[in-house]
Amino acid sequence: MPVQKTQNPSTGTAVQEPELWAAEALERLRSDRVRRVPAGPQQSSGWGREGAIALTGGIPDPKYLPVDALRRALLTVLEREHEPALEYGGAQGLPVLREYVATRVCAEPGLDLGIENVTLTSGSSHSLANVTDTFVNPGDVVIAELPSFSGALRCFRSGGADLVGVPMDEQGIDTEALDRTLNELESQGRTVKFIYTIQNFQNPTGIMQSLERRKSLIEVAGRHHVLIVDDDPYGQFRFRGDRLPSLLALSGGEGVLSVGTFSKIIATGLRSAWVLGRKEYIDALVSTRFDGGSTPLIQRMIAAFIEAGDLEPHVAKMTQIYHEKCETMLRAMDERCSSRVTYSRPDGGFFIWGELPEGGDCMALVQAAREEGVAIVPGTSYMLQPELGRRNFRLAYSYVPEEQIFEAIQRLGRALEKSAR
Amino acid sequence: MPVQKTQNPSTGTAVQEPELWAAEALERLRSDRVRRVPAGPQQSSGWGREGAIALTGGIPDPKYLPVDALRRALLTVLEREHEPALEYGGAQGLPVLREYVATRVCAEPGLDLGIENVTLTSGSSHSLANVTDTFVNPGDVVIAELPSFSGALRCFRSGGADLVGVPMDEQGIDTEALDRTLNELESQGRTVKFIYTIQNFQNPTGIMQSLERRKSLIEVAGRHHVLIVDDDPYGQFRFRGDRLPSLLALSGGEGVLSVGTFSKIIATGLRSAWVLGRKEYIDALVSTRFDGGSTPLIQRMIAAFIEAGDLEPHVAKMTQIYHEKCETMLRAMDERCSSRVTYSRPDGGFFIWGELPEGGDCMALVQAAREEGVAIVPGTSYMLQPELGRRNFRLAYSYVPEEQIFEAIQRLGRALEKSAR
Repeated sequence: MPVQKTQNPSTGTAVQEPELWAAEALERLRSDRVRRVPAGPQQSSGWGREGAIALTGGIPDPKYLPVDALRRALLTVLEREHEPALEYGGAQGLPVLREYVATRVCAEPGLDLGIENVTLTSGSSHSLANVTDTFVNPGDVVIAELPSFSGALRCFRSGGADLVGVPMDEQGIDTEALDRTLNELESQGRTVKFIYTIQNFQNPTGIMQSLERRKSLIEVAGRHHVLIVDDDPYGQFRFRGDRLPSLLALSGGEGVLSVGTFSKIIATGLRSAWVLGRKEYIDALVSTRFDGGSTPLIQRMIAAFIEAGDLEPHVAKMTQIYHEKCETMLRAMDERCSSRVTYSRPDGGFFIWGELPEGGDCMALVQAAREEGVAIVPGTSYMLQPELGRRNFRLAYSYVPEEQIFEAIQRLGRALEKSAR
Repeated sequence: MPVQKTQNPSTGTAVQEPELWAAEALERLRSDRVRRVPAGPQQSSGWGREGAIALTGGIPDPKYLPVDALRRALLTVLEREHEPALEYGGAQGLPVLREYVATRVCAEPGLDLGIENVTLTSGSSHSLANVTDTFVNPGDVVIAELPSFSGALRCFRSGGADLVGVPMDEQGIDTEALDRTLNELESQGRTVKFIYTIQNFQNPTGIMQSLERRKSLIEVAGRHHVLIVDDDPYGQFRFRGDRLPSLLALSGGEGVLSVGTFSKIIATGLRSAWVLGRKEYIDALVSTRFDGGSTPLIQRMIAAFIEAGDLEPHVAKMTQIYHEKCETMLRAMDERCSSRVTYSRPDGGFFIWGELPEGGDCMALVQAAREEGVAIVPGTSYMLQPELGRRNFRLAYSYVPEEQIFEAIQRLGRALEKSAR
């Protein structure tokens, strides 16, 4: 298109002037929502040279996708319940899958969830958009620990949120700084709707929020009457250490919405995720959706996969695999990179967070790495101001094939040498 | 939840006071978006007595869902391309399925669509929400022909649109009234973003917009620089008459966005649909999405279904089945209801539109029908003011089993007798 420049032969109708609907008209017609967020990377725009290795994606290792178990689950669904699987399923989602989420996937001591506490969505990004639509008016404040997941920050901004950052330390979000920030915003008469946090193996830092910090976060948020939105895609992949009670459990289920997903524990292509919380809040999330609900066929496939007992062993197996891949990457880093950079040693999740010495520039490193044939994400991507995060970078060990990890880090080592010159 | 009333035994943490997060807090926290639209019917709330027959859903007949062909398509995908099917697919959607939509499903003379003119969504409702997010600021005007699809009206309202109705006649939207309305809104300094229309076998009236009216609509919209958003779920089910060129083709692809879906031509549970339009407008739609794209597994399954040549024969078969069901329902209406009500004789689609005589009240009819054991939709559901549409009702013949049609209309006939008293 434009389809016809002059005349439609089948009808003889004079067509619209194409210019009438070109850039200027679009500019006039589009909403503030489009204006607020610059077009993001819709596709991966190439990783540099041929044969480049990507350490960018926080995505499950495709080699271990549970294809056979998913095929069995699909065939079960089409055999047993094809009609409901192929008809509208409702906005809140399949009751039995909500029950599995409440009582198996997210079960923990002290937490008594029912299906009314769960809404199913089309992926965590959709969950976050749904939360934003439900709670944020343009001009409201959303607080994010920084650095944080760039997709979430873009989503909140698109919904009109004014983002305010709070720093983290090795225990997670700095709740004293949070308290000061909330006091300041209140004294300015600002409306703060929620605090966005990633409690377990945070993206991008890999930090596990400590128990004390969790309690403190709940206390501060409660005192200021601000919701906590916890995003927990990685919590099930724990390599060592005790499982900590979640913000949802610690709060008694009050004042916390917990966002979870099947993307990381099964496959990202399922586009299936959930939000947990107090019933009235879940009802509010459901009421802002107009998409006819997420795909029933997929929801039923996942339910059949869980019913068959395939989820828990898969998560256990993948935890071990990610642990091994993480150790491999750390060994390679110790050997090739430790003289030029410091980095985290995560207890779980998908990511290693690197820090360059004083004066280092992640953009130069990313460029040098691209030339060497390895893709990494600059720390600036996880910040609100590009001048922050300049000394950091993120490495994902989840997606890269095991056998390429050493080579990838060798390339990174050369890039560090080059970019430090 | 609330999970714990007093103390969390695993941690000893004092939990939040539940009241802190109850109704009052939710009221304070939620966005205008939630406030704008009252909670809708999330689930079907029962159809009256046991054994009731539903003539409410504009849904494909489940007896004829192409389960075997879809199973074959799924197995092909899992065999051939399971990795990309189970990984992120991008916001705009699978290129090959966009190509099939552009060159097979939506192909028509004078229309030269490419994959850049297509974005895939999670159902038509999602398409309409995406269009609303992309173009509508709170307080902008959206114009709808009336009566119209209630889900669309709710969606636009949720996005903050001020809805303005324009009446229809037997040729479709009244474009003279539209022109007057646009002049008036302009003189008031209002911003009108788009006109929502259903060109083929309209929901709920079944009306086919005439060729003259289509041309007139494009002329009026173009003169006022207002987009046309055409929703076309039913156009492929044509029982008689010539296919008319679409608004998109007639306009040369300019100033028109066309919303289509696999829900009605394959299955609603796929949650897979599309928007067609000029590339820049499609890019704008893609840029307001933060849900990680629609399900790649489903998109690939549909592509394999089309590739195998299963779509076109299925649509042809279903057209014949819906035609027969429509004729059966009309014969029953002629026999049982024609003395008390007038109704449309549709040339395609899923719906018959009924009109009670002067002074008739659809709410009384709906209630009487419920008591008799048949569910129908009152005309007021398709209007902006409940005082309009009081004499109308909609019957869907698509979903009801053939063998129940006569019984359903007998019940409706009794309900007409009772409610007319």
